[in-house]
Amino acid sequence: MHAMLVTAFGSADVIQPGEIPTPQPRPMDLLIEVHAAALNPIEWKIRKGAFREGRRLPFVPTYDLAGRVIAIGSDAFQYGFKPGDDVYAMGNILRDGAAAESVCVDARTVAIKPRSIDFAHAAALPLATLTAWEALYDRAAIADGETILIHGGGGGVGHIAIQLARLRGARVLTTASRPETIELCRRLGAQQVIDYTKQDVTAVVKELTEGQGCQVIFDTVGGPTLDQSGASLAVAGRLVTIVGTPIITGSKDFFIKGTTVHYQFVSGVHIHKLDPSRHGQILRQAAELVDAGKLQPHIETIFPLAELAAAHRLAETAHVTGKIVIQVR
Amino acid sequence: MHAMLVTAFGSADVIQPGEIPTPQPRPMDLLIEVHAAALNPIEWKIRKGAFREGRRLPFVPTYDLAGRVIAIGSDAFQYGFKPGDDVYAMGNILRDGAAAESVCVDARTVAIKPRSIDFAHAAALPLATLTAWEALYDRAAIADGETILIHGGGGGVGHIAIQLARLRGARVLTTASRPETIELCRRLGAQQVIDYTKQDVTAVVKELTEGQGCQVIFDTVGGPTLDQSGASLAVAGRLVTIVGTPIITGSKDFFIKGTTVHYQFVSGVHIHKLDPSRHGQILRQAAELVDAGKLQPHIETIFPLAELAAAHRLAETAHVTGKIVIQVR
Repeated sequence: MHAMLVTAFGSADVIQPGEIPTPQPRPMDLLIEVHAAALNPIEWKIRKGAFREGRRLPFVPTYDLAGRVIAIGSDAFQYGFKPGDDVYAMGNILRDGAAAESVCVDARTVAIKPRSIDFAHAAALPLATLTAWEALYDRAAIADGETILIHGGGGGVGHIAIQLARLRGARVLTTASRPETIELCRRLGAQQVIDYTKQDVTAVVKELTEGQGCQVIFDTVGGPTLDQSGASLAVAGRLVTIVGTPIITGSKDFFIKGTTVHYQFVSGVHIHKLDPSRHGQILRQAAELVDAGKLQPHIETIFPLAELAAAHRLAETAHVTGKIVIQVR
Repeated sequence: MHAMLVTAFGSADVIQPGEIPTPQPRPMDLLIEVHAAALNPIEWKIRKGAFREGRRLPFVPTYDLAGRVIAIGSDAFQYGFKPGDDVYAMGNILRDGAAAESVCVDARTVAIKPRSIDFAHAAALPLATLTAWEALYDRAAIADGETILIHGGGGGVGHIAIQLARLRGARVLTTASRPETIELCRRLGAQQVIDYTKQDVTAVVKELTEGQGCQVIFDTVGGPTLDQSGASLAVAGRLVTIVGTPIITGSKDFFIKGTTVHYQFVSGVHIHKLDPSRHGQILRQAAELVDAGKLQPHIETIFPLAELAAAHRLAETAHVTGKIVIQVR
């Protein structure tokens, strides 16, 4: 089959077209004809060599996907899928991805795609939705009436997080700086968008929370943003970060306020070889929200599969509003 | 009344005897005749100037105490205390402490002292017990069958934590280095004591947990110990630290493993002016455990009140086994 391949670890130039055998489903797999895929920051981290242990070159990248079930592994029938089902999923980053005509994915991580949106929009959802859902619902357990600060509300994960937080009745403050991201955050329900290039985030949060700070902070940015977040957290506040290396230095706020910091890594379930069924559960619930008009992905640009390298280059600028999607079929 | 006073911020030399008026109970207070008090690391931090905002010099230090109720504030009768009750408590670090003939303490934070131990041993309990209880039970929610690593098991908080962890059915690994602390940890129920000066803690933990790491780590040491703890944590593990400034740098383990870090500060309830009733609740439950022979404080040395400065100097060496107590009466 035709595929785009990462042929070496390095810049986007290492992405090249190629022909490889159609993958054979393992017992727990679905074989899926890929219609669309989507990018996330982990894509270029892996392309540059992250999680390289045991990875053989060349490999097929791109793990978010939507498509049609072609075949079902011998142990995967129990999950109710049949050939012809339109599905969406986040693949396992240790296996081949979806930048190809077809891909194998563990059936436990797959869900029927939302009926009200096309494959491109469905492919934009999995990683961002799983990440935001696990962060806000499973880890921080955000509750009705709480105030959340979302760092990077206009990004792939951030714009889904705004919607999930609002669905639980939270008040959403978010940071953004470009007109497109500010507009997107507002449209998706953020009550307050703080332009961190023009405003002192800590001071604005203090003012908006009558000096109390936010019960929850969701950090999709990392680095100094994480460190400074201590000052914006309420007493006993919870912070969830999805950004790699934890570098928290200096801020006494985390301690004095008795806070909790959750490190959220959506692919941990695959890295640590745990039961991934929670991913399928979340995507089933998310599909219902989408079809009820309560959750929507925002796509900035759709690239054809042949232009995957160009898509990587755009994504790496980190000036993307919502998601970049790859149309495969 | 006679008291020991911190007369300036600085070394232990600033601690001087003096005469001050007997304190008057506020509506929620009990006035307590102090029989014994105890030291904790926060004592010398405050003496050196921590939490100095609004603090007037001179002041009475020493917040852990055991004694006898003398008088009851107008709103404190509802908590059931009567003059003559023998009680124990951790005082509010923003108010005068217990290095004096008497002290006022919020009735909600006070409990009847364990009947089976003397005032000196009762005074050794409050801060360590509240800290370990909140850390292991309220924050990490340690469960039967889990493995916990306690950094500094022979210290004031650590030796209580070992016992509380065992009471919940946890398997306890702990670090210690001196013969006295190693012996204490073993006697109190730690299944494995790791001498961090001779052994590679991470390697030993890996071996003892079949490569899985510990579900819970309780860090009473801080600094590099906290950073290195990521390697000893299990996937989805919880770490509770009680050491001031959070400096977590470099370790990717916290993120990759999807861990949770709780910052536990027992005096936060006073600093943030929250309802402190949980402290009274915990000390009531702890007294039952003590009287049932299930929890015991370990005292290294008892100093008379007049030698409070010497007690500070010994405590600051950080080579203390269990607790240093001040006999007041």
